[in-house]
Amino acid sequence: MPIVLAGNSYGKSRVRVVKVTRRADGHDLAELAVNVRFEGDFDAVHTAGDNSAVLPTDTMKNTVNALAKAWSGEPIEEFGCQLAEHFLGDNPRVSRVRIEIGQSQWIRLDRHAFTRGSEEKQTTEVVGARGGTDIQSGIESLIVLKTAGSAFEGYKKDRYTTLKETSDRILATAITARWAYRTAKVAFGACRQRAREAILKTFVEQDSPSVQHTAHAMGEAVLNAALDISEIRLTLPNKHCLLVDLAPFGLDNLNEIFVPTDEPHGLIEVYLARQT
Amino acid sequence: MPIVLAGNSYGKSRVRVVKVTRRADGHDLAELAVNVRFEGDFDAVHTAGDNSAVLPTDTMKNTVNALAKAWSGEPIEEFGCQLAEHFLGDNPRVSRVRIEIGQSQWIRLDRHAFTRGSEEKQTTEVVGARGGTDIQSGIESLIVLKTAGSAFEGYKKDRYTTLKETSDRILATAITARWAYRTAKVAFGACRQRAREAILKTFVEQDSPSVQHTAHAMGEAVLNAALDISEIRLTLPNKHCLLVDLAPFGLDNLNEIFVPTDEPHGLIEVYLARQT
Amino acid sequence: MPIVLAGNSYGKSRVRVVKVTRRADGHDLAELAVNVRFEGDFDAVHTAGDNSAVLPTDTMKNTVNALAKAWSGEPIEEFGCQLAEHFLGDNPRVSRVRIEIGQSQWIRLDRHAFTRGSEEKQTTEVVGARGGTDIQSGIESLIVLKTAGSAFEGYKKDRYTTLKETSDRILATAITARWAYRTAKVAFGACRQRAREAILKTFVEQDSPSVQHTAHAMGEAVLNAALDISEIRLTLPNKHCLLVDLAPFGLDNLNEIFVPTDEPHGLIEVYLARQT
Amino acid sequence: MPIVLAGNSYGKSRVRVVKVTRRADGHDLAELAVNVRFEGDFDAVHTAGDNSAVLPTDTMKNTVNALAKAWSGEPIEEFGCQLAEHFLGDNPRVSRVRIEIGQSQWIRLDRHAFTRGSEEKQTTEVVGARGGTDIQSGIESLIVLKTAGSAFEGYKKDRYTTLKETSDRILATAITARWAYRTAKVAFGACRQRAREAILKTFVEQDSPSVQHTAHAMGEAVLNAALDISEIRLTLPNKHCLLVDLAPFGLDNLNEIFVPTDEPHGLIEVYLARQT
Repeated sequence: MPIVLAGNSYGKSRVRVVKVTRRADGHDLAELAVNVRFEGDFDAVHTAGDNSAVLPTDTMKNTVNALAKAWSGEPIEEFGCQLAEHFLGDNPRVSRVRIEIGQSQWIRLDRHAFTRGSEEKQTTEVVGARGGTDIQSGIESLIVLKTAGSAFEGYKKDRYTTLKETSDRILATAITARWAYRTAKVAFGACRQRAREAILKTFVEQDSPSVQHTAHAMGEAVLNAALDISEIRLTLPNKHCLLVDLAPFGLDNLNEIFVPTDEPHGLIEVYLARQT
Repeated sequence: MPIVLAGNSYGKSRVRVVKVTRRADGHDLAELAVNVRFEGDFDAVHTAGDNSAVLPTDTMKNTVNALAKAWSGEPIEEFGCQLAEHFLGDNPRVSRVRIEIGQSQWIRLDRHAFTRGSEEKQTTEVVGARGGTDIQSGIESLIVLKTAGSAFEGYKKDRYTTLKETSDRILATAITARWAYRTAKVAFGACRQRAREAILKTFVEQDSPSVQHTAHAMGEAVLNAALDISEIRLTLPNKHCLLVDLAPFGLDNLNEIFVPTDEPHGLIEVYLARQT
Repeated sequence: MPIVLAGNSYGKSRVRVVKVTRRADGHDLAELAVNVRFEGDFDAVHTAGDNSAVLPTDTMKNTVNALAKAWSGEPIEEFGCQLAEHFLGDNPRVSRVRIEIGQSQWIRLDRHAFTRGSEEKQTTEVVGARGGTDIQSGIESLIVLKTAGSAFEGYKKDRYTTLKETSDRILATAITARWAYRTAKVAFGACRQRAREAILKTFVEQDSPSVQHTAHAMGEAVLNAALDISEIRLTLPNKHCLLVDLAPFGLDNLNEIFVPTDEPHGLIEVYLARQT
Repeated sequence: MPIVLAGNSYGKSRVRVVKVTRRADGHDLAELAVNVRFEGDFDAVHTAGDNSAVLPTDTMKNTVNALAKAWSGEPIEEFGCQLAEHFLGDNPRVSRVRIEIGQSQWIRLDRHAFTRGSEEKQTTEVVGARGGTDIQSGIESLIVLKTAGSAFEGYKKDRYTTLKETSDRILATAITARWAYRTAKVAFGACRQRAREAILKTFVEQDSPSVQHTAHAMGEAVLNAALDISEIRLTLPNKHCLLVDLAPFGLDNLNEIFVPTDEPHGLIEVYLARQT
C-alpha cells in the first residue's frame, strides 16, 4: 500500500512579546506568549523539498511583533483575530490558521510599575479558516485551595481500595477552563470576568462532595452567568494534600498537618453545553 | 436552553513505578509513569454528588502497583493492555479506559547498577473500550542535532521576512513520534526498535532542505521499515541554533559559533498513513 | 599524603508541610518547604559504615511534621528556632543544625478558601550551634517590572561592546533579599513587612541609572526602615526585555514592543552593612 | 551607624554557546553555558550612579562568543582561563573574575550528527585574581541507581523514628562532584576521565551501608586515582525509591515494586582533602 501524507501543520511556538501602551497618565502592560500554526496545501514541501510556498516561522514571529504594535492592547481575542485574518489573507495555500495566546498576570503598583501576579494565564485560541473564524477562550493554572467544605465518601471499593472515606478534607486544584462563544460579537473582557468570578464563587461557596461535582457546578455557574458562552470544558487536577499520621508520635491530627504532593494526582474533566 | 453534561472523564496521572525483575544472573529495571483515565456513565457523580460508581483515583494507583507485580517487565504495551482489561472488567459503568505509559531510559552498568540515559521516553497509549482495544506507541524527546546536510532556501518572503537563506545550518530537534499498528498481534519491542532506527538513520543520512521534508522522510522510513505500523505522526520542534554575528569584532563566522535558543521555536507536524 | 575527611553534612531537603490553624471564625493556612541539615562528628559513619550516630533523614521529616503541630503558625523564624533547638538538644554529636524554611504565598478568598499568590517566597535560615543561634531571613522571587524611570548610559565600552545606550528602558527583575538581625529579640513579622515595603517603594519611586544603583538603594532603604536589620544582601537578575527592531517593517518602536528573554541574564549582587 | 557597601559583584549568567569545530573528517561539537562575574572597585556605580567603570554584561556575552571562536574546543578549563585572563587584563577596576562553565553531553552518531546524552554536565569554575588563578572542576547530575548492595541499618532511633531498617534497598542518586587541583599544569581531560571512572566504579562495586559511606568511598577513590586532584567535595541526594506495601492486596513485595519520589529527599555532602 502506498504511503500518503494524510496531514501536516507547521508554525512558531512561544513567541513572547511585551506591549507597553503609553497613555498620558501612565502605562499599560501586556505580556503574551503566542503560538502560530498553519495547515494547508504544503505537500510539495514535504515530498519534493520545494519551499516556495513556505512562509518561514521566523516571519510568523516578526508578524506577531509588527501587528502587536497596531493592536490596542486588549483584549487578546482581538489580537488573535487580527493575526489570523492577516495570515489567511496573505497565504492562499493556507486553509487554517490557529493562533493561541496566553497572557501573564501583572499587578499594577503605580503608573509605570508592576509586580508579577500568580501563574494564572488568560488564554484564547482563534482558528481562522476560509469558512469563518472560531474563538475559544479560557483560563489556565488558577490555583485554589479550601480547608473546609470538601468531602469524599460513599465511593466504590474494590480489592485494591485502601483510601479512607473522609467528610472533611483539603481540596486543592489548578483550574483550567476553556469556553466557546455563541456568537462572534462578544464583549470578551466582560464575559471573561463573569466566567472567572462564577468559577471562584462556586469554589468558595459550594460544598464539594467530589472534584467531579465541583467541576460540574463551576461549569453550570459559568453558563448561567455568561449567556454568550455556549459550552465549557473544565480540567481540575486533584492536588492531594495528604493528612499526616501523627499517631506514632502520640499526637492527634484533627486536619491540621498535611503533606502537599505533586504526583500522582487525580485529574477530572467535564464538558458542559447548552442543549440544542 | 438547559445545560447538559456533554462529556466527562477522570483518572490518575503521574503514577510512577519502578519494577525490578530479579533474575538469577542480574536485575532488570523498568521505570514507568502511568496515567489512567475512565470515561463512562458518571452523570450522577457530577450532578447529584452520588459517588457510588466512582472508583477512587487512589485505587487506580494501587492497581498499577499491584498489576506491576505480575507484569513480566516488558513490553509496556503488554502492561497497558493488562491494566485496560482489568479496569474494564471490574467497572461496568466505564465505557472507555485510557492507559498512557512513558518509560524512562536507564543504561546498564553491570548486573545490578544502572545510569540514567537521555530524556528520551518510550511511550504507549492503550485505549480499551467495549468494542475492542486500540494501541498507539511512540517515542518522546529523542533529541538530535546535525552540523551538516541541512539547508533552508527558496522559501516565500513577504514584507515581514528578514530571515536569511542558508545552504548550511545546524538542524536540532527533539523528536516525538506516535504510531498505530495494523493488527494487535505485534512484536512490540522489535517493531519499536525498527521504527526508532529508521528515524535516526533518516536524520543522519538524508540531506534536509527543511524540517518538513525531514519529518516526512522519517515517517516514510518508519512505514517502510516496520510493516506492522499503519500510520505515524511526527512532531519536530526546530530548536534554533542561531549563527552569531562576529563581524563587529573583526571575525568571520563560518558556521562555527552559534547560540542555541529555547523560545521561540518552530514546530512541524506530519501525519503519514498507508493508502487504503 | 593521607586522605582526611575534612567536612561533612547531611539532612533532608524539600520537606513540604501544610499547617491549617483552625480558629473559631475561620482557618489560617501556612505552606512551607523545610530543609534540615546536620553537621558534626560523623566520621565513623563515613569511614567505618557505623550508623549508630545517624538520625535518619526520614526522622527529620517526621520531626518537622510533629513540631508543626505545636507551632503557632507564624512566624517562620519561630518554627525554625524550635526545630533547631529540638535537634541540637537530642543529638549530642551534632555541632550545627541548619534549618531553611520557604513559605509560599496564599491569598485569602474567604474564611476557608484561598488562591495561590505569586512565586514570591518568604524565607528564613536558622543556624543553631552550641554557642548560639543565628537567624537570617529574606524574600525570594519578588518579580517586578517598570516601564519608565530606568536608563543605562555612560558605561565602559571596549571592542566587544555593541549595546546601545538608552535613557529609557524596561527594568524587570526577580528580587532575592537576605538579611541578618542585630539581636535575636525581633518582631520578625513586622520587620519583614518593613523590609519588603522599603524594597518595593525604592523600586517604584527611584529612577534607576543601573541595576547596581537600584539594588544598592533598596539595601539602604531596608537598613533605614528596619533598625533591627544589621546587614542585607540583594541579588537582582536583569530579566532583559529587548526592544524589537520594527524598522524593517516600516514601523517605529517608541518603547512599545519588547521581547522578554530568560537567558542570558545579567546578575547583580550587593551586600550592605552598618559600619561598626 | 552609617551604612557601607560591604561587597558587590555583577555579571552575565546563562550565556549559551555552541561551537562547531570543522575538521577534515568530521565535526566536533561543544555546547556550553557560561557565567561571568566581576568583583572589584565599583562603589561609584552603586552609590553615585556613575557607570563609567561598568563593562556591560552584554559585552561579557559578546566576549564569550568572540573568544569561543579562537578556543580549540577542549578542554573547558582552557576556555575558562582564556576568558578570565582577557577580562582581568582589560578591566583594571576588577579584582576577581569568576568564570563558570557547564558542558552538555552530546553523543556522536556519525561525522556530523549527534544525539543528546543524559543530563550530566561537565563543569569548571575558574577564578582569576591579581594574585593568580584558581581552577575547580567537576560533574553535575550524574544519575545512577543500584538494585543490590545497598543497606541502611543500625542507625539512631528516637521517638519520631518510624523508618524500617533494611539490608537490601534501592540506592539512587544524582552525583555532583567538585575538585581542586594540586597544580595548574594538569591534563584536565585525562584527570576528569579518571575521576569520573573512579566515582562510577565505586558506586558499582562497593556495598553501601549508607549514602554517607558511599560518598566518602567515592571521594577516596578519586583522590587515589587522580593524583593531580588535591581535594574533592561530593553531594549526593538520596533519591528515595520507596518499597510499595502490597500486603493489603494479598501480594508480597520482595524488593520488586517501588515508587520513586522527588521530595523530600536526603542530601549528603562530604569534603575530602589530602593531609598537609
